[in-house]
Parts: sequence; C-alpha cells; structure tokens
Amino acid sequence: MVLELHVPHGDDFSALVPLIPVLLSYVLSFVYLGIYWNNHHHMLHATEKVTGSVLWANLHLLFWLSLIPFTTGWLGENHFATLPAAAYGVVLLMAAIAYWILQQRIIASQGEHSVLKQAIGNDWKGKVSPALYALAIGLAFVSPWLAIAIYVLVALIWVVPDRRIERLLG
Amino acid sequence: MVLELHVPHGDDFSALVPLIPVLLSYVLSFVYLGIYWNNHHHMLHATEKVTGSVLWANLHLLFWLSLIPFTTGWLGENHFATLPAAAYGVVLLMAAIAYWILQQRIIASQGEHSVLKQAIGNDWKGKVSPALYALAIGLAFVSPWLAIAIYVLVALIWVVPDRRIERLLG
Amino acid sequence: MVLELHVPHGDDFSALVPLIPVLLSYVLSFVYLGIYWNNHHHMLHATEKVTGSVLWANLHLLFWLSLIPFTTGWLGENHFATLPAAAYGVVLLMAAIAYWILQQRIIASQGEHSVLKQAIGNDWKGKVSPALYALAIGLAFVSPWLAIAIYVLVALIWVVPDRRIERLLG
Amino acid sequence: MVLELHVPHGDDFSALVPLIPVLLSYVLSFVYLGIYWNNHHHMLHATEKVTGSVLWANLHLLFWLSLIPFTTGWLGENHFATLPAAAYGVVLLMAAIAYWILQQRIIASQGEHSVLKQAIGNDWKGKVSPALYALAIGLAFVSPWLAIAIYVLVALIWVVPDRRIERLLG
Repeated sequence: MVLELHVPHGDDFSALVPLIPVLLSYVLSFVYLGIYWNNHHHMLHATEKVTGSVLWANLHLLFWLSLIPFTTGWLGENHFATLPAAAYGVVLLMAAIAYWILQQRIIASQGEHSVLKQAIGNDWKGKVSPALYALAIGLAFVSPWLAIAIYVLVALIWVVPDRRIERLLG
Repeated sequence: MVLELHVPHGDDFSALVPLIPVLLSYVLSFVYLGIYWNNHHHMLHATEKVTGSVLWANLHLLFWLSLIPFTTGWLGENHFATLPAAAYGVVLLMAAIAYWILQQRIIASQGEHSVLKQAIGNDWKGKVSPALYALAIGLAFVSPWLAIAIYVLVALIWVVPDRRIERLLG
Repeated sequence: MVLELHVPHGDDFSALVPLIPVLLSYVLSFVYLGIYWNNHHHMLHATEKVTGSVLWANLHLLFWLSLIPFTTGWLGENHFATLPAAAYGVVLLMAAIAYWILQQRIIASQGEHSVLKQAIGNDWKGKVSPALYALAIGLAFVSPWLAIAIYVLVALIWVVPDRRIERLLG
Repeated sequence: MVLELHVPHGDDFSALVPLIPVLLSYVLSFVYLGIYWNNHHHMLHATEKVTGSVLWANLHLLFWLSLIPFTTGWLGENHFATLPAAAYGVVLLMAAIAYWILQQRIIASQGEHSVLKQAIGNDWKGKVSPALYALAIGLAFVSPWLAIAIYVLVALIWVVPDRRIERLLG
C-alpha cells in the first residue's frame, strides 16, 4: 500500500475539514487495492506455473494499480471535481482490463482442464465492472458524484471475496 | 515501516530542537508498529488456513495501521496539541478493535479446538488496551500529556511479546 | 516499484499537460524496472547457492536501479532535456553492467556445468544493450529525442522475456 | 532501501553540483545498508528459532537503521557540516550496538553449542567498529571530514562479507 496522506498544518478541527475528501478517496482506494490484493492472492494460489506472459500480464496490472495513489490524490485534493473523477475511473477500467488479461494468461497456461477457469465460472463481476467503470467515466461529466457512487457500488460488489476460487481450492 | 522524518534546514543544535517532539512521536509509533508486527507474526503462525474473512479482517487492521504515520506526523509537528493527541488515540483504538476482530475471525476459522483461542487465554491485554485508549482520548481534552502518558503505558504493557502464543507454539 | 508521480494542482486538462512528459518517462522506467524484475526472477531461479559475492553483485545492481526514479523524475520534469536524457542513459548503462557482473558471479558460483551459462547462450541482448546505451548517451547531446528513441528500442528488445532460461528451467 | 534523492530544478550541470554531497552520502549509506542487509541475511540463516527477544532485538536494530535516511539527508544537504557528521555517526554507533545485541540474543537462544557463536569467532570487526564510530563522533567537532574518512574506513572493513559464517554454514 503506497497511498499517502499529507499531514495538515494547524491543530484544530478546521485543519481537518479539507482532509475529509482526501480521507474519503483514501478509504475508497484502500478498499479497491484490498480487493485486488485478496483476489490476486487467491488467483495466484490457483497458478502452478509462472510463464513469461503471466509475469508480463502481472506487471501490466501492477502498472495501472501503481497509478491509483496518483488519481486518488488528484481526486481528494480537488474535492471530487469532474476530470479527476473521470481519471480515477479510467485507471480503474484499465486495471480491470489488465486483471482480465492476467486471468486469461493464467487459464491459457493451465491448458484445457484449467482449475482457474472452473473456479471463476461465468465471471459476471469481471464482466459487469468494466461496463460500470465506462458508464461512470461518462457520467463524471454530468456529475462527478454519480461517478463516485458507481465506484462505491462496484467496490461493494467485489468486497465479497472470490469465494468461487476459495471453495474449489481451499 | 513507513514512518517518515523530514530533514531539517540548518546544521546546528537549534535546527534539531523542533524535531524533538517529532522524534518522540516517531519512537512511540515505531514501538506500536513493532508490537503489532511481532504479535501479528505470532498470530499468523498460529493460523493454518487463510479464509476470505481473515484476509478482509487483516486488511481492515492494515487500514488503521496505515493511518499511524499520518497521526504520528500530526502529533509531532504540533508539539503534542490536544486534537492530534486525541486523533492519535482514535487510530490506536480502531487498530486495537481491528486486531481483536482479526483474532476472532482466525479463532472462528479454526473451529472449537482453536489453538489460538487456547493460546491467548483470557486476553486481558486485549481487553484493557481499548478501555485505556478511550480514556486517553477523553483526557486529551484535559491535557494532551495525560493522553500521551497512557499511550506510553499501554505500549509498555505490550512490549512483552505474546509469550502465551509463543509458549504453546514454539 | 518506487517511482513517484506528484499530484498536479488544478483539476482541468491544462493541469495534465505538464504531466505528459512525466507520465511518458514513468511508463518507460516502469517497463525497464519490469524487464529487470522478470529477468532477475528467472535468473535467481537458476541460482542454487547465494554466495557473498553474489549478494554484493546483487546490491550493486540494486544501487543503479535505485537511481532510476531519480533520473526518471529529472527527465520528465525537464521535458526530455539534453543532460537528463544523458543521465538517464548513464544509469541504464551502469545497471546493464551491474546485471552482467551479477550474471558472471552466479555462473562462477555454479562451476563449469553452470545451468545459467547454458541458459543465456551467446547473450546477444546483454552485449548489444550497453553499446546502444553508450551510443544514446552521446546522441543525447545532438538531440535528446534520439537518445529516448534508443531507450525505447532497447526496452522493446528486452520486453520478450528471457525464454532461453525459461525453456531450460521450466 | 528507503533512501531518497530529490529531483533538482534545472537541467544543466550546475543543477547537479549541489547534488554531489547528497549523492556521496547516498552512496555511503547505501553501502552501509547493504552491509547490514548481507550480514543480517547470513546471521538469520544461522538462526533456527525466532524467540520474542530475538524479534525485539531485530526491531531495535531496524529502528536505528530506519534513521539512516534521515541522517544521510541531513549530512548531504548541509555539505558535510559538523553536527550532521556527528549525528550520522551516532546513528551508526547505535545500529552497531543494536546489531551486537541481536547477535547476543540469537547466540543465547541457541544454547551452549551455538553455531553463530562459533561462526563469528572473536568478532574483531564487531568490536572495532563501535570504537571507531565513537572516535569519529568526537573528531567531527575537529573536522567533519575526519569523521567521514572514518565512516568510509569502517565501511571498507565490512564490505568483505562475513565469510566466517558463510564458510561454516554454506
């Protein structure tokens, strides 16, 4: 976790007020990074062999996740303005696509009896999330709060860890 | 450990004077993070199976611990003022609650013959600490130094590592 | 990954414009660090015994890699100026030399039937890259963009992971 | 490695001049942290059982090592002034003492046939270094360069990794 919070100047409640949006975006991003960490943990447990293409797909995912502290800071310090809210969604969308690619690379490396393929089933969360992120990016230009609401919604969908994999692999 | 110390401008003793409260809160937080690290290390050694709810309880604990550098910086840079001293305690209180939840989730995952449950015994430290933190948060508004004194006291109580678990699990 | 992106002031597209060179150099360095990480991962898998000289050769490599965030920031914040572009290449050149030394130390520790020696074969990438970096450092003083073009070229050469080692060691 | 280098403003050679002392102290500290990392790696390999007191002795060492980026920055940004040069030595001295304590705790945990005790032999480096640090701290008030010279000397003494342990434990 490389999210950063800057120490405010001043020692009274008014010093904390501008921190509220910063803290809210911090919490949202912490939850997102937690979701990725947990599901990534489960997914890698279902991976026996790390091929070159899996390593690169993993780095690609890390690249987009590494931008989350940046978009989080930009969102929080601008009190949920339009462009930062859209940029936040773009990075989430790209991370979701990168996660999907990584998943496909692992399944491909496992051959036709892929444990991971069975474990994820129809993967409705993985399909719905990018669509919702894309919707949120568009809606950010109507109202950034609509975008934020969708980000919170997608996070809630995922907070339940990927029990499918957990169940199959223990 | 992600605590940060900023390099002072100037190269004489007077440049170090404003650093004294910063260093003191750094030491206190280092000890707290060390306590969590050590006991966490012992607790996870007593955990055979990492379920989804254990992973989330662990992330919840990490969330509050990740705020410690922030409250440490706020406390040190404001020379132990009232509100930062209270905020420091709020984060410690939430971390203690999160640690307790994680402990309960691990015990639940182990079933009725839980090794961890036997190991922690009556867990008096785990019960006394949150009460002391709550007391300290209130006392911070009387004098921040009373709050600090309680934080030091709780740290001392915990500096003895959790020998109960150590003894049972070697 | 310790590359850093600073949050811009302002919340419109014009706030992002000065970030473009910063982001481009971030991407380039992320790819370079990814290449080192992946190949390093494969190389250490081919290493059974970690001797003192291997540890030091590894630290020497880490030293040069640890300077990449610095040269990346300098390059990006100066919009690909001459000296930063040359400095970027100097650090890449030194990292390449350090990687080669580490490789030689591991091969030496493995004796005459070194698995790693067979795996890397004629190591043409390892020989061509330092020459290209040296060329780029010189060309930076003609045009920094020529240097950047060569850095991108070398990255592309390496993005294909070291299948030689992968193939031999599975 | 958490040493930090700040990106200079400006893109010519004159922008790099104030960085020279910063880079020199960065190199010195990188070497010191490397020495600790390597010898720590060897020492922990000679440790079968991690007791509570070993964990705490290890955290105590980490505490002093965590101050090295701070004293490094202070030394470099003040062009090797007297007080920063002395402070740099104080942290090295405390780290050396902490390392010695950790070593003693591990030896105690291993009982009378301690492998580590045999491995370190008469431990002349461990005895000479604190004396040299203490000398350097005093000499910093005569000339900081004398102190720096001693820090470089001690680093050179240690750069040869602890072959005693390596030889016994392979």
